[in-house]
Parts: sequence; structure tokens; C-alpha cells
Amino acid sequence: MAEEKNQDLYSAFAIMEQGGPVKDFTYTPIPLRPDEVEIKIAACGVCHSDLHQQNNDWRIAKYPLVVGHEIIGHVINVGSEVSELKKGQRVGVGPQTGNCGNCSECHRGQQQFCPTKDKSYNSATGNDKQPMTYGGFAEKIRVKAAWVFPIPDGLPTNQAAPLLCAGVTTWTPFVRYGVTIGSKVGIVGLGGLGHVGLQFAVKMGCDTYAISTSPSKAEEAKGYGAGFINSKEAKDLEAHKGSFDFLLSTISANGVNWNQYLDLLRPDGKLCMVGLPGDFSVSPGKIVCRRLTVCGSYLANNQEIRDMLKFCAAHDITAAVEVLPMTAENCNVALAKIHNNSVRYRMVLERTTL
Amino acid sequence: MAEEKNQDLYSAFAIMEQGGPVKDFTYTPIPLRPDEVEIKIAACGVCHSDLHQQNNDWRIAKYPLVVGHEIIGHVINVGSEVSELKKGQRVGVGPQTGNCGNCSECHRGQQQFCPTKDKSYNSATGNDKQPMTYGGFAEKIRVKAAWVFPIPDGLPTNQAAPLLCAGVTTWTPFVRYGVTIGSKVGIVGLGGLGHVGLQFAVKMGCDTYAISTSPSKAEEAKGYGAGFINSKEAKDLEAHKGSFDFLLSTISANGVNWNQYLDLLRPDGKLCMVGLPGDFSVSPGKIVCRRLTVCGSYLANNQEIRDMLKFCAAHDITAAVEVLPMTAENCNVALAKIHNNSVRYRMVLERTTL
Repeated sequence: MAEEKNQDLYSAFAIMEQGGPVKDFTYTPIPLRPDEVEIKIAACGVCHSDLHQQNNDWRIAKYPLVVGHEIIGHVINVGSEVSELKKGQRVGVGPQTGNCGNCSECHRGQQQFCPTKDKSYNSATGNDKQPMTYGGFAEKIRVKAAWVFPIPDGLPTNQAAPLLCAGVTTWTPFVRYGVTIGSKVGIVGLGGLGHVGLQFAVKMGCDTYAISTSPSKAEEAKGYGAGFINSKEAKDLEAHKGSFDFLLSTISANGVNWNQYLDLLRPDGKLCMVGLPGDFSVSPGKIVCRRLTVCGSYLANNQEIRDMLKFCAAHDITAAVEVLPMTAENCNVALAKIHNNSVRYRMVLERTTL
Repeated sequence: MAEEKNQDLYSAFAIMEQGGPVKDFTYTPIPLRPDEVEIKIAACGVCHSDLHQQNNDWRIAKYPLVVGHEIIGHVINVGSEVSELKKGQRVGVGPQTGNCGNCSECHRGQQQFCPTKDKSYNSATGNDKQPMTYGGFAEKIRVKAAWVFPIPDGLPTNQAAPLLCAGVTTWTPFVRYGVTIGSKVGIVGLGGLGHVGLQFAVKMGCDTYAISTSPSKAEEAKGYGAGFINSKEAKDLEAHKGSFDFLLSTISANGVNWNQYLDLLRPDGKLCMVGLPGDFSVSPGKIVCRRLTVCGSYLANNQEIRDMLKFCAAHDITAAVEVLPMTAENCNVALAKIHNNSVRYRMVLERTTL
């Protein structure tokens, strides 16, 4: 098989400069390390953070930049020290691709907070020829086996790819903050993250509501087995005042009236942010007098990612996707659609032919 | 004994109008109910919230107002249904004096969030003659036995009185938010609340620091077995960056730079407010990317109050107090000292003679 050779040139699609379009790109990968596997990419989801990196919104982007961190593919080469993965196996790769193993966060099993963690792209490699890692808008990728996740049978590749980030991100809040059967849960914002989180809550046995400014999404929430609350309707908010155990906010807008969400919580209720708004301001009396919690969540530890994928397979949870063949042109189309907030709910680029 | 008679006139000290001084006051109490005990007050601590009520800062004060909710005294009369308390027993009463028993908060054992809870003062009685409850700036008080707490032997009355509010308030955060042996804990603000919370953390086996803008308090923190961080010193903050598991904020100032406190937390760290600042604003990226928690705490449930008092007796925890005889004049002196922030750390009014 041609794939088994250590080819010296990967074809990929890169952003060459800040704000620039995606263009055809080739690069020579670092030789496969003993603890890595080489993966032939089948599909890659497109995340809003890819757009942030294209525009260097976080001031950390290095160009050329091959984005994409919701990757599913097949193992085509296995490093000499890897025993848990096999050639031909269908696997996933998310935003994190390694951890140091020696810091306090790694020691306590929360590798996502490892300050020197490896990332699927825009992460230093310590190699002159390929100084930065390149992500999933590509033909292949080489990743440490510990951060390569077997995809359970039954999960379709295109629909499962977004689970590697959107799933990872919305899974851990439920685990970490004690959300459980019978909890009343609201998912604030029904987009790429929200529609996955909504399914987790429904399938976990929660009394689940989508909370959105778009009444057009009420039917879709119902389709997922959830109720709907229009956050622009005072009477909707009033009807649910003081009743939620947990709100998962996926919104990233600025100037949000966060007090109206705190008012939806019962005493000891929690508002967890996974979206990243620009500001956050509340009346502290609401937090103190009803003992509310405002918290966040970021990615997941290595085991939680595996647990999440198993849960998705067991409960038929996938992302609603719009699929395009992976070409430079379609990469640009996908990022533009995310910019215009017109995706329902996740773009996936499919590597149809190689 | 004269105290055993159901006297129809209590002597007390009341604020007669918003912002007005404390004056001599007498009132006829509601007859002792079967589930109540009558307590001859020995001492009453003075809390900052008494001052807020004097000035009607929260727009809920009804005058005449007999404040005081850190009460220790002796049982002098026992209602016909009360079996767990006896005449002569030394007992305490805090801000809460009853709960409905029928709401979801009572059902889950968090009676402090009962929306119709009774309070030691400024709480409707449903009685024409004494429409509001009157608190601890008085000779006697009648309270439901369930909310009257035996004071363990060994706790001195004057030094223990503030535990009924300051102790209650700073105890529960540690219980609710999983602070435990080995946790690194910071107490933000070393005042009436802070100096009690500091002792809880030290005696629980935490690595404990007082965090204050007043370097003059460093010696006192050391005396309690804690370290000291000057929150105005950038190098102090830098030395402890990303290291705290838990910060208990007792501060009520406005315009606080809360981001600097979030920066002191390690991933999964928690900032809990028990003081009530006027505003609260942070960068949400700090909360999301390091999975921080901002939370609050308000009073305690009935069992936690009993647990706290036992812990204080076992570990010699008391409040540092300035004691004055309970007279109208001294009530005004105490409230003025609180207004001027000149108390170290709690005023107590002692009912020396009756």
C-alpha cells in the first residue's frame, strides 16, 4: 500500500497570512516518532476557533497555518512503541495531541491544562523544518498514540468528526459539575456546540431546554427531545425563573445580560461557560444570596474524551453537519459560512479522494 | 425566679427611623408559642448588616428596628412542645430563626434559602401588636427551638456570639465547595468575617493566607497561623500566581480588580464571595480556559451551624472582640465604629445587668 511508505510530502490547505484565504500547501512532515501513528484523514470538522486563528484574534497564530482539529481518519502507520492502535483502525484527533506528563495538571489527570501541551496545529514542534504543527485541513497527520481516539463502530465519520472538539467541549461540564439524571438543564445558544450538548443532556435523563434568541430553532430543539425558551421573551424567562440546576452557555457575544441567566437558576444552580464572550458582568448579590456558581470548562481530559465517544455510540449522538469535499475553495467557503453564522450546525470537510 | 414569669414588656434598643440613632425602646412580645423558648440575652455581636439595615441600604427595613443577630443567652422559659432545650441552658441565635418546612429548599435541607424563612429581626410576625420581629439589642428574645443552638462548654460567651453570623457565614463555603486538608486557601479581607474564616482554614489543615490591602495585619495573620499577601503589591501576587485552590472573599468594596484574584487560582480553583460588593466583572477567558469557579455563600443550614459550633469548641476558635455594655449609647458607638471600619474585629454588646 502506498500509504505505508513514509512519504516526504503532505498535501494540505493553509492560511498563509493573517486574515488571508486558505490556499493549497504542501509540507514535509517530521519523521514518524516511535510513540506516534500516522493517520490518513477522512474528514475534518470546522470550528469557530479555526476562524479566530485565521484572523489571529488571539494573537497566537503562526503562519502558514493549517487549521482543523476535528479529525477522523484511519491509521496507516504505527510507531515502534505503539501497541494499542493498529493499521486500518478508524480513529479521531482533537485539539490536543500531547501532554508533558510531568506537571501538576498532568499528575492530577487534567492534561488539558498542561501548560506545554501539544496541539493539533499552531503548536511548536522544536524542529527547524516544520516549526509548527499542521492540523486537519490536510491529507495526513502524525499524532502521539495516547491522543488518538478509537471511533466506536456505528458512529458515521462525517457526523462524528465534530465530536472531537464540540463533543469534547460540551461533555466535560456535565461530568465536572455534577449534572445528573433529573437535573433541569438549559443549553444557551443552539449552534455547533449547543446542539451536541443538548443531546448529552437529553440522553442523560435531564429535563432539558434549548435557550436561544432564534425562535426558528424551537422545532429543532423539540426534535432533539428538549423544550425551548426564547431568551428575548420576558414571559418565557419568567415562567422558568429560579428553576434551573445547570445552564451551559455556548454563546460568545459581547454585552450579554448575564443577570437574566442567573435569574433562571435555583439556589446552588450553576452557569457554565464554554463559549467565550468578550466580557462578563453580574450583580454579585445574585451569586451570594442564592449561592450560585459561575464557572467554565475547557476541553477534556484524555479519559473523558474516550467516555464521551462511547456514550455517543451508545446513544446515537452525532453532529448535524453540512459536508463539502476538502478543497482549498471549500475550506474558504466553510470559514465564510461560520463567519456569517449560517451553518446548521457544523461544517465538515470530507477527504473524498487522495 | 422573676425570669420565669411571662413578662409583658421587654426592654430593648431600637432604631426608630431610617438613619436614626438607637434609642431606648420597650415592646410587648407575642405570647410564647409551644415550639419556642424564651432567652435572656447575655451578649449580642454587631454585624455590618445591622448598619445596612439602620440606613435601609437594602430597602427592606421596617422601623422601629431592633437589630442584632449574633445572640448568646440562657433559656428562661420553654414552650410546651420543646423537649431538646432546658431552662438555664446557654444557647445561641443567629440571623435565621425559622423555616417553612414545606418548600423545595427546606425539603433538600438548605433552609437558609427558604423564601419565607423567619429572621431574628425585621421579619413579619403576622401579629398586629408586634408586626415585626425584634433582634438581639434587647433584654430577651423568643425563638423557635429548632433555631436555637446549644453553645458548647468552653466557648466564652462574648467571643462566641459573633460565631452565630460571622462563623455561620464563613463555615459553609468550606463545606459546600470541597475545601479540605492540604488545600491552599486565601481569605480576602481580614475583618469580622475574615478573621473567623482564617481560623477555620488553618485548623482544617489548609495552607492558609490572609490577603489584604493592610500590611499592618500581617502580624495578626501570622498569629493565627496563616501567611500574608499584600494585595496592593504586584510581587506578592506574582509569587502566588496560579497556586490557590480556594479564595474566600469577605470584601464588600466596589470597583475591585477581580481579575487579579482569578489569576491567583490554579485550574479548577474557586473564588467564593461572602462579602457583598456592588459590582462584579471579570474576563470570561480566565474562567473558561482554566476552568475557574466564581461562587457565593449565604448563611448555613441548620446542621452546619451546629457542626460549626462544635468545631469551634474543639479547636479553640473564637472571634476577636471589643466589648461594651449594652446601652443605647453604646449601640450607637458600636455602629459608628463599624461605619468607620475601626473594629478589630467584631463589636459585642454585653448585657451585664438586668
